[in-house]
Amino acid sequence: MSAQTYGRAYTLMREAAGEAWGDYTRHAFVEGLRDGSLPREAFLHYLRQDYVFLIHFSRAWALAVVKSETHAEMLGAVATVNALVAEEMQLHVGICEAAGIPQDELFATPERAENLAYTRYVLEAGYSGDLLDLLAALAPCVMGYGEIGARLGAEKTSDTYADWINTYAGEGYQGDCAAVGQLLDGALERRLGKDFETSPRFAALCDKFRKATELEVNFWQMGMTP
Amino acid sequence: MSAQTYGRAYTLMREAAGEAWGDYTRHAFVEGLRDGSLPREAFLHYLRQDYVFLIHFSRAWALAVVKSETHAEMLGAVATVNALVAEEMQLHVGICEAAGIPQDELFATPERAENLAYTRYVLEAGYSGDLLDLLAALAPCVMGYGEIGARLGAEKTSDTYADWINTYAGEGYQGDCAAVGQLLDGALERRLGKDFETSPRFAALCDKFRKATELEVNFWQMGMTP
Amino acid sequence: MSAQTYGRAYTLMREAAGEAWGDYTRHAFVEGLRDGSLPREAFLHYLRQDYVFLIHFSRAWALAVVKSETHAEMLGAVATVNALVAEEMQLHVGICEAAGIPQDELFATPERAENLAYTRYVLEAGYSGDLLDLLAALAPCVMGYGEIGARLGAEKTSDTYADWINTYAGEGYQGDCAAVGQLLDGALERRLGKDFETSPRFAALCDKFRKATELEVNFWQMGMTP
Amino acid sequence: MSAQTYGRAYTLMREAAGEAWGDYTRHAFVEGLRDGSLPREAFLHYLRQDYVFLIHFSRAWALAVVKSETHAEMLGAVATVNALVAEEMQLHVGICEAAGIPQDELFATPERAENLAYTRYVLEAGYSGDLLDLLAALAPCVMGYGEIGARLGAEKTSDTYADWINTYAGEGYQGDCAAVGQLLDGALERRLGKDFETSPRFAALCDKFRKATELEVNFWQMGMTP
Repeated sequence: MSAQTYGRAYTLMREAAGEAWGDYTRHAFVEGLRDGSLPREAFLHYLRQDYVFLIHFSRAWALAVVKSETHAEMLGAVATVNALVAEEMQLHVGICEAAGIPQDELFATPERAENLAYTRYVLEAGYSGDLLDLLAALAPCVMGYGEIGARLGAEKTSDTYADWINTYAGEGYQGDCAAVGQLLDGALERRLGKDFETSPRFAALCDKFRKATELEVNFWQMGMTP
Repeated sequence: MSAQTYGRAYTLMREAAGEAWGDYTRHAFVEGLRDGSLPREAFLHYLRQDYVFLIHFSRAWALAVVKSETHAEMLGAVATVNALVAEEMQLHVGICEAAGIPQDELFATPERAENLAYTRYVLEAGYSGDLLDLLAALAPCVMGYGEIGARLGAEKTSDTYADWINTYAGEGYQGDCAAVGQLLDGALERRLGKDFETSPRFAALCDKFRKATELEVNFWQMGMTP
Repeated sequence: MSAQTYGRAYTLMREAAGEAWGDYTRHAFVEGLRDGSLPREAFLHYLRQDYVFLIHFSRAWALAVVKSETHAEMLGAVATVNALVAEEMQLHVGICEAAGIPQDELFATPERAENLAYTRYVLEAGYSGDLLDLLAALAPCVMGYGEIGARLGAEKTSDTYADWINTYAGEGYQGDCAAVGQLLDGALERRLGKDFETSPRFAALCDKFRKATELEVNFWQMGMTP
Repeated sequence: MSAQTYGRAYTLMREAAGEAWGDYTRHAFVEGLRDGSLPREAFLHYLRQDYVFLIHFSRAWALAVVKSETHAEMLGAVATVNALVAEEMQLHVGICEAAGIPQDELFATPERAENLAYTRYVLEAGYSGDLLDLLAALAPCVMGYGEIGARLGAEKTSDTYADWINTYAGEGYQGDCAAVGQLLDGALERRLGKDFETSPRFAALCDKFRKATELEVNFWQMGMTP
């Protein structure tokens, strides 16, 4: 699975994020999923926080619909909202229920500061900027999970967290990442031209991508401290 | 078809809108749909403007997802976005194509000022206020069409515009109106209590509903002047 | 008074607006101010609507503070908010009072649809886009009045509306226009580079400028029909 | 200095914040300002972060202008924007310069996650909600500093941080707090009625106030770890 497949802008932004990208995609939490050494308690704690995360992340993707300028952009963003609200959130409900965490308790999860920081950063970037600012802040989560899933699908040494890994390694999620990559490339070309990376705007977007990546690192870190 | 079926808030807001409500739901354009006397040219002109309207109206409903506070509110708003983007906009594409207006031409329809005024009013009300402000501005279009459709389904004297009438008179659309009515009632009760109509806030929401109703009147009027 | 003095972006956008710019800055209402033939009733009606306009226009300039990325951008936008809220709105209160329209009546002016269309368009452009989208939609009002004021200051053949003309022809207002022109040029260079007009983004901004110009035309037209 | 003087809503919200309020206003950082034991390095680190904080906090107050519904609300919010942008930010520039931190370095301060979390939370609450949501999230900073300043003005046992203390203990800042308290009370009464605390809405606003208070605690904590 090459990062290239998620599009040109993604590849450039990921590079510009420097060490933060590795800190995120190869975090100790991720390695614990790979070799099964992550304590179950940490995983369930993470899942509950991630459920709260997905609520606000879905709201941010809905904001991408609001900020779209073409029918194609709207359809791309709507598809992601549907995938998040109808599928991914439901997945978390299922795993948590199977682990003995009832829906009521899941819904009532108190939001940790590291969690809040991330989603409010993304939402505010989107509200204050245009679709490009929003997509740049949304991309690290979508594609980072795709990259982590693909790698762990190939490198995992334990089946303890196979369900989680398979979700993000699977064709469905990988296809979502490719689609978001196209949405991002298309939105950039439409607004800044084919050579969008030469615009000063692109450097500012890379900053948003890197900041969101750093907030992902904090999120994994939080996952390890239930 | 009683207005009651779209919920309590709708019934109160409709009453508070006074004469504007009748000016909207019994506009000459509507009566022309009922008895088939509306010139085809006016109808197609209206349809094209309505397509542009639906783009921005869908964006406004996506904003309702962003502004939701509960999972139920999110699901209700997402369902409407899907119905608009995936179905209603497609319906317009189909009718226009059948009438010899190709998609490219439809997409390139220049937006009339009466059209722009309405959608920007709704979007701005939503951005500047909370979910209640947004829903109050969205309601007249959704439910007004439901009420018009139901009446015309029973009273039409011509089949010239039967397709249009049946769409809004049909169970599907009537169900959408009932769902939006529940969403509105629920959002009000959650924020202002069971007796929400006693809050000063409710009067301000009725003002937004009435203003949007007046902008609907202007939209029909525009429809009659291609 | 050359348009050049309000900056490079303004000159380009004004050109791109084509005939709409002349329709706005040489509207019959404007010519009526120049030669004093505008009926007093129309002028007072316009002033009252313009007061309502300024409320929402000030809100839009406050949104420019929110959307600023540098301290200089913030200071520029804050200065304009202050000029609008503390000075220009107060000027209208004064002229209206002198004309026998008490503050209470002024504040209660019902907003006409042509008025609402304009401010909501600007606000929504700002909310949905970034600072550039907002400034492009704000510019026609600020600089158009500057251009009209400067021309009428030189060409007026009657002193009936000299107070109004002198306000916009005066050094203070002309300086505000130059400052906004610098703010716009600076914001564009920062985001799109020195040759910002070669970015696809610039064409989209010119569309917003032209649309706002057309809404100005409708506003003058409304002024003539109390 | 009684909390009562900042208004009724503030008193109720402060009470509803429970222990978080004391954690914030009597944090070790605050006590270190009182008795002069706070290391200079921590203070300067805090000042630099607070400068970045004030940029976004000013943007949030500008958003309060956008979300205002009356001229009085607009004037109240504009006054606060001016106080922040023109005065408080300038104060930080001065103290930092006197401490050998040049403006360029101050402006380039990298934003810590605890800092970002707070301002983005406030801005997002404001964007997604109405003026009440925004004011509830803004209040803990404004009034908490007022309360801390007033107490430290009376209880300080060292003059090491007298400049800082006197700023917030002084009549000017205390007057600002009283004005914001009136703005909050007025906005609540206008929207929810005289007995606003009986509305379900008020409980949600208290949650926002408490969350912002918790983020203030994290901000002090960050201040102690340069």
